[in-house]
Amino acid sequence: MNKADVTDMILEKKRATGITWGEIAEGIGMSDVFTTSACLGMNAFPREKADILARNLGLPQEAAVVLAEYPTKVFSQSVPTDPAIYRLYEIVGVYGDTIKELINEKAGNGIMSAIDFEMSVEKVPNPKGDRIELKISGKYLEYKSW
Amino acid sequence: MNKADVTDMILEKKRATGITWGEIAEGIGMSDVFTTSACLGMNAFPREKADILARNLGLPQEAAVVLAEYPTKVFSQSVPTDPAIYRLYEIVGVYGDTIKELINEKAGNGIMSAIDFEMSVEKVPNPKGDRIELKISGKYLEYKSW
Amino acid sequence: MNKADVTDMILEKKRATGITWGEIAEGIGMSDVFTTSACLGMNAFPREKADILARNLGLPQEAAVVLAEYPTKVFSQSVPTDPAIYRLYEIVGVYGDTIKELINEKAGNGIMSAIDFEMSVEKVPNPKGDRIELKISGKYLEYKSW
Amino acid sequence: MNKADVTDMILEKKRATGITWGEIAEGIGMSDVFTTSACLGMNAFPREKADILARNLGLPQEAAVVLAEYPTKVFSQSVPTDPAIYRLYEIVGVYGDTIKELINEKAGNGIMSAIDFEMSVEKVPNPKGDRIELKISGKYLEYKSW
Amino acid sequence: MNKADVTDMILEKKRATGITWGEIAEGIGMSDVFTTSACLGMNAFPREKADILARNLGLPQEAAVVLAEYPTKVFSQSVPTDPAIYRLYEIVGVYGDTIKELINEKAGNGIMSAIDFEMSVEKVPNPKGDRIELKISGKYLEYKSW
Amino acid sequence: MNKADVTDMILEKKRATGITWGEIAEGIGMSDVFTTSACLGMNAFPREKADILARNLGLPQEAAVVLAEYPTKVFSQSVPTDPAIYRLYEIVGVYGDTIKELINEKAGNGIMSAIDFEMSVEKVPNPKGDRIELKISGKYLEYKSW
Amino acid sequence: MNKADVTDMILEKKRATGITWGEIAEGIGMSDVFTTSACLGMNAFPREKADILARNLGLPQEAAVVLAEYPTKVFSQSVPTDPAIYRLYEIVGVYGDTIKELINEKAGNGIMSAIDFEMSVEKVPNPKGDRIELKISGKYLEYKSW
Amino acid sequence: MNKADVTDMILEKKRATGITWGEIAEGIGMSDVFTTSACLGMNAFPREKADILARNLGLPQEAAVVLAEYPTKVFSQSVPTDPAIYRLYEIVGVYGDTIKELINEKAGNGIMSAIDFEMSVEKVPNPKGDRIELKISGKYLEYKSW
Amino acid sequence: MNKADVTDMILEKKRATGITWGEIAEGIGMSDVFTTSACLGMNAFPREKADILARNLGLPQEAAVVLAEYPTKVFSQSVPTDPAIYRLYEIVGVYGDTIKELINEKAGNGIMSAIDFEMSVEKVPNPKGDRIELKISGKYLEYKSW
Amino acid sequence: MNKADVTDMILEKKRATGITWGEIAEGIGMSDVFTTSACLGMNAFPREKADILARNLGLPQEAAVVLAEYPTKVFSQSVPTDPAIYRLYEIVGVYGDTIKELINEKAGNGIMSAIDFEMSVEKVPNPKGDRIELKISGKYLEYKSW
Repeated sequence: MNKADVTDMILEKKRATGITWGEIAEGIGMSDVFTTSACLGMNAFPREKADILARNLGLPQEAAVVLAEYPTKVFSQSVPTDPAIYRLYEIVGVYGDTIKELINEKAGNGIMSAIDFEMSVEKVPNPKGDRIELKISGKYLEYKSW
Repeated sequence: MNKADVTDMILEKKRATGITWGEIAEGIGMSDVFTTSACLGMNAFPREKADILARNLGLPQEAAVVLAEYPTKVFSQSVPTDPAIYRLYEIVGVYGDTIKELINEKAGNGIMSAIDFEMSVEKVPNPKGDRIELKISGKYLEYKSW
Repeated sequence: MNKADVTDMILEKKRATGITWGEIAEGIGMSDVFTTSACLGMNAFPREKADILARNLGLPQEAAVVLAEYPTKVFSQSVPTDPAIYRLYEIVGVYGDTIKELINEKAGNGIMSAIDFEMSVEKVPNPKGDRIELKISGKYLEYKSW
Repeated sequence: MNKADVTDMILEKKRATGITWGEIAEGIGMSDVFTTSACLGMNAFPREKADILARNLGLPQEAAVVLAEYPTKVFSQSVPTDPAIYRLYEIVGVYGDTIKELINEKAGNGIMSAIDFEMSVEKVPNPKGDRIELKISGKYLEYKSW
Repeated sequence: MNKADVTDMILEKKRATGITWGEIAEGIGMSDVFTTSACLGMNAFPREKADILARNLGLPQEAAVVLAEYPTKVFSQSVPTDPAIYRLYEIVGVYGDTIKELINEKAGNGIMSAIDFEMSVEKVPNPKGDRIELKISGKYLEYKSW
Repeated sequence: MNKADVTDMILEKKRATGITWGEIAEGIGMSDVFTTSACLGMNAFPREKADILARNLGLPQEAAVVLAEYPTKVFSQSVPTDPAIYRLYEIVGVYGDTIKELINEKAGNGIMSAIDFEMSVEKVPNPKGDRIELKISGKYLEYKSW
Repeated sequence: MNKADVTDMILEKKRATGITWGEIAEGIGMSDVFTTSACLGMNAFPREKADILARNLGLPQEAAVVLAEYPTKVFSQSVPTDPAIYRLYEIVGVYGDTIKELINEKAGNGIMSAIDFEMSVEKVPNPKGDRIELKISGKYLEYKSW
Repeated sequence: MNKADVTDMILEKKRATGITWGEIAEGIGMSDVFTTSACLGMNAFPREKADILARNLGLPQEAAVVLAEYPTKVFSQSVPTDPAIYRLYEIVGVYGDTIKELINEKAGNGIMSAIDFEMSVEKVPNPKGDRIELKISGKYLEYKSW
Repeated sequence: MNKADVTDMILEKKRATGITWGEIAEGIGMSDVFTTSACLGMNAFPREKADILARNLGLPQEAAVVLAEYPTKVFSQSVPTDPAIYRLYEIVGVYGDTIKELINEKAGNGIMSAIDFEMSVEKVPNPKGDRIELKISGKYLEYKSW
Repeated sequence: MNKADVTDMILEKKRATGITWGEIAEGIGMSDVFTTSACLGMNAFPREKADILARNLGLPQEAAVVLAEYPTKVFSQSVPTDPAIYRLYEIVGVYGDTIKELINEKAGNGIMSAIDFEMSVEKVPNPKGDRIELKISGKYLEYKSW
C-alpha cells in the first residue's frame, strides 16, 4: 500500500459518501488546503491526525501509517494543461520577477520558503462575479554569506 | 524604443536615485505589484498613469507611450532557476491539484482568472522569523456548456 | 470507473450501433462539439444531460455520474502528429500573433476566453471542393489594473 | 531588407499615424486577417497588393518586393506564453480530437487544409459581455489510397 | 480490437506463412507502400480491400472493420534512432530548404501535399552496389490569399 | 567569409538578376537539387564547379574556395514549422516504418545511404491539379557482422 | 516471442550457468562485441549462428528465429545516465569535431560508416592502472555530388 | 582573447598556408587528435607546447597563454546533425550497453575514464573501400565502496 | 528478481520492523550512505556484505546475488521535483562553476571522480537551527595530454 | 555595468596579476567558495566586503555597488557538459534519493536549505592519489503542517 493507493481509497470514500475536503479537514482539526494536499500524497500528516482521519473515513490502519510517511514530491515539469492549474502557472510566469523584486525591496536578499509555508483558498462572493482568493505565507529566508 | 528599453531606464533611475518600487507606485496611486509588473514590461499602464510615472521619474514622453502599450507577455518556460522564483513554481507543482480540488468544491466547474486578477506581496514581522505573504484574487470563471 | 472507461464504452456503443456523434448530441439536446468533447472526457455534462445520455446509450448509471464529474483536462504538449490536428496547431502558430493584434485593435487589452467559450464544426459543400468551417466564440476578458 | 525589416517599418508607420490594421487592409481591398499576417511576415501579398500597400504607407519600393516574397514560416514550438495566444493553443489541445472526430463524421477520412484556408476575427457586442468570434474555413482534403 | 492488435495479427501471419508485403499487396490489388502502411496502422484501407485482405490472411471479420477505420496517426517526434529511418530524417534536415526553394521556383507559393500523396520504394540493381529508390508524388497546393 | 556569407551573396545575385536555381545549375552542368543545396551551404562543390559558378555569378574568388569547403551540416532538430518542409517531415513520421519494412523485404538487413545519394524535385502537370515529384536514390548498405 | 524476450532468456542462462559473453561468442565463432550486441537485440545474427547459439544455450528453436530477425534499433536519446555509457557520450561531445576534422584531412569529404562497421573492447594491463581499449573500424563513405 | 578567438586564428592560418592538423601536431611533438582538440578549444596544451605552436604558426604571445588555459568543455546535447558526427553518436546508442557489459565482464564494476584518456584516428587503405579506424584508450576506474 | 524487487523487499522489512538505514549499515560494517544507495539499487555491495545483509534482514539468498550485481545507474534527467533533492541540484547549478574554478586552482586541470568517491550525511545540532552536513570526497583525476 | 561586466574585470585582473581566488578571499576575510561564487555573479557580497575587494583589485567604485547587488541566479538546466561539473550532477542523480532518505531518517520530514548554506572545497593529499573534498552545510528546514 502506497500513497497513491490511499489517495484512491479516499477519493472512493468521497464519491460514495459525498463528504467534502472541508469536512474531512474539519474532522481532524486541520486546514482544508493541507488536508487535501496530504490526501493527494503531497504532504505527510502528523501520525495522530492520520489515525483520526483513517478512523473517520473507515480506512484500514495501514492507511494511517502511509498517510504519515514522508512523501517524495513528484510533479510534472511540463507546462500544466488543465486550465485551472495553468492559470496559476501563468501567474508565476508573468509576476515571478515582480514578486522577487518586492521580496528584495521589503525584506532583503532572500526568498519566501516553500517548506515553512501555508496557504488558504477561498471563494469570495462579489456582485460583479465571485472571486477566488489565495493567501500564501512562507517564512522569509535570507542568503548566508561566509 | 520598446518596453525593454523603458524597463532599463526605470532601473537606471532606481539605482541612481534610490527610489523604491513602493514609492514609484505611490506616486501614481496604483499598487506596488501592478506598478512593478508594468515597469518590467508585463502589463500596460492606463495612459494617464504612464504620463504621471514618466513625469515623476524624468523619463522622455515616448516612454509613457510605450508603458501604455499592450504587451506581448513572454516568459521562459524552462523551470525557473532563481531560488526566489523557483519556490513559487514549486508551490504550483505541489499544490496545483489541491487548489483545483478546492476551487471545484467551493465554487464549481471553473477556474480562477489570471486576467481579471490582482495580487499583493507583503512582509509580515514574526518573532519566529518574518514571513512573506502573497494574496491573490482572481474572478471565478465557470465553464460554459452548449 | 473513470472518464477514460466511459469514453471506451461510448466508442464501443458507437461501433456496435452505428450511432453518430450528431445523433448522440441531438438525443440530449446539446451541440455536437460539446457532446463529443465531453464524451471524450474533456468536459463535464450537466448531470441531467448525463443521465439522458446514459439512458439513451444503455450505459450503467455510474457512467452518468462520471460524465458529470469535473475533468482534469490533460493533453499532450508535444507538437501533435495526426495531420488533422497538426493543421489546427499550425494555424495557431502562423496566425496567433495576427489574432492577438486584431483582438487588441477591435476590443482592447484583453483576450478571448477559452472557458466561457463555444465552437461549431461544419462541412460546407463547395463546387471547387468542400470546405470545413470552424466557428469559435469566446467571451472577451479585459486585463485588470489595480 | 527582409520581411522582419518591413514589419518594423509598418509598425513604425502604425504608431506614427495611428492607422489601424483594418484601414491598411481596406486600402488594398483584402481581409484584415490576411493583411495583418502578411505584414507580420507570415504570408506573401500578391505583388500588385504589395505595391499599393507600400504606396499607401509611404514605404520604399523594395518593401513591396519583400512583401510579395514567399515566406519561410517560422514560429515557436514551445507552448505560447502570451495569454491571448495561449488560450488558442489550449483550445486546440482540449478540442483537437473532437474536431478530428467531427471532420471524420461529416466529411470522411481527411483533414481541413491550412493552405487553402481563410479566417476572420470579429468582436460581437453582447449584453453579458462582448465576445470574440473566429471563423475558419479550410478546404477538405481526402487521404489518397493507391 | 484496435489497429495495433490487427498489426500484430498480420505480423504473426507473415512470420508463420512467409508471405511478403508485396504478396499481401498484390492480393488486394494495391501498392506495397500503401498496403504496408495501412497494415502498420498508419492508413485506412477502403472497406472492400480490407475485407479481401482479411479473407486472404485468415483474419477475423472484425479485423477488416478495424483496418478500414480512420486512424489517428501517431509517430514519435524525437529524432528516430533506427539507422534506416534516421537516414530519411537526415535527408529532410539537409535537403528540406532545397526542396522548398525548388517547389517555389517550379510551381509557386505552395507546398507538396502529404494527404493527396503516393510513394514507391524499389531496389534498383547497380554494378557499383544496388540502390534504393523512393518516388514520392504529392499534389501541389497553393496558399490562398483573401 | 564563410558559407553563410556566400549564400547571402548568391541570394542577393538571384534577387538582383532574376536568375533561377535551374539556370545556375545549368551553368555549371550539375543538377538543380545538388546545386541549390550546395549554394545553401549543405554540400561542397567540386572545386572546378565552384570556380565556374563564382565566375558566372560574378562572385569574388574567395567565394569559390568557400563553396568547395567541406561543410558541417547543421539543421534544426525541432519539428520544422514551415508547412512545405513540415509535410516532408510528416511523411517520414507516417511512412518511415513502412520504408524500412520494404527495404528489408526487397534488399536485406541494411539501409539506404544518405551519403552516396541523389535526388530530384519536379513539377508534373496534371489536370486534377499539378503534382510535385521527388525521386530519391541512395546506395544500399548492408550491416556487417563480425 | 520478441528480441527483448530472448535477451531475458540469455541473461537468465548467463546468471544460472556463469557463462560469459566471451564464451558465448567463442561458441559461435563470432566476436564478443557483435555477439553481445545481437544478444541485447541491437543486431541480427546470421541464421546459422543463431541456431548454434540457441543450441549451445539450450534456448527454444523459436529463439533462433528471433535472433536472426532484422531489429529496429531503438535507443534513448536523452543523455545517458549510467557512468560507463555517459563517458562514451562525453567523448563524442568533446572529440566529435576533432574526429570529423581528421577524417576530412586524411580521407576527404565523407564519413565513417556505422553500418559497414566493426568494433572490439579489451582490457589492457598497465602498471599505472589497467586501461580499456576500444578499436572501431568503419568503411569510409564519400559524399556524392551530381 | 579567448579560446574561440584563438581557434579562429588557427583556422585562418590553416586556410592561408595550407598547413594540416598533422603538420601542426608534428611541429610540437604531440598527437594529431590531442592537438586538433586543443586547437578547437576542448583541451589545454602544456604551456611549453602552446609556446612552440604559437611560434610555429606566427600567433601572438597571448594566444599561447590562452591555449594553455584549462577549458570549460561545452558541447551541444541535442543529437548531432552533421552526418560524420551523428554516426559516432549512433554507435554509442547502438553499442553503449554492449561496451558496458564487456567492460564489466573483462575488468569488473567500473568504467573507462574519459579524463585519463587518449585516442587516434587513421585512414586504413582497403581494396573493398578504405576504412577509418578509431583507437580509444581510457584508464579503468573501479567504483569505490565504503 | 532484479534490483528494484530487492529494494521493495528491503523497504517492506524496514516498514515492518522499524529498522533504520543506520542500523542496516552498522550490521554489515559499511557506511550508511553507501548502504542506502546500494539498497536503492544505485551501487553494488561486495558479495560477502550482500550475504550478511540478506541474512540480517531475512531476505532470500537470491537477493544477495542481486545486491552484488553491477547496476546500470539510471536516474531522471528532468529537473528533480522533490524539494530535498532539488536543493542539491540547485547547489550544483549555483556553485558548479565555483567548484570547478577551485579544483583548477588547488589541484590543476582535472576533476573530482564520481567513481572513486565517498560521501557522508549528518545532522549537526545548532542552537540557531540544526544543520545538515554533507561531506564528499572523490579522487582527483588529471586530464591526460598525449 | 552589471554583474557579468564585473566578473570580466575580475578575471582580467586575475590573468594579469596572477592573483588566486584564495588570495582574493583572504584579502576580504571571507571563504574562497563564497568569494568565488560572488565574483562569478551568483551571490551578493556584503557592501563593506565589496568595497574592500574593489579597492584590493583596483576596480572602479561602481563595481563595488554591483558586487553588493542581489543577483538573479541563472544557470543552465540542460545537463552540464564540462566533466568537472557533470560529475557533481551525476552525484545528485545517483545519491539524491539516498541523501533524502538519510535527512529524513536523521532529522525528520524536511530538507537541507540551499539558502542558509555554506560550502568548502579542498584538495587533500593522499598517497593513492590526491582527493578533492567538498563539505556542505545547510540549515535543516522542517515542513510545516497547518
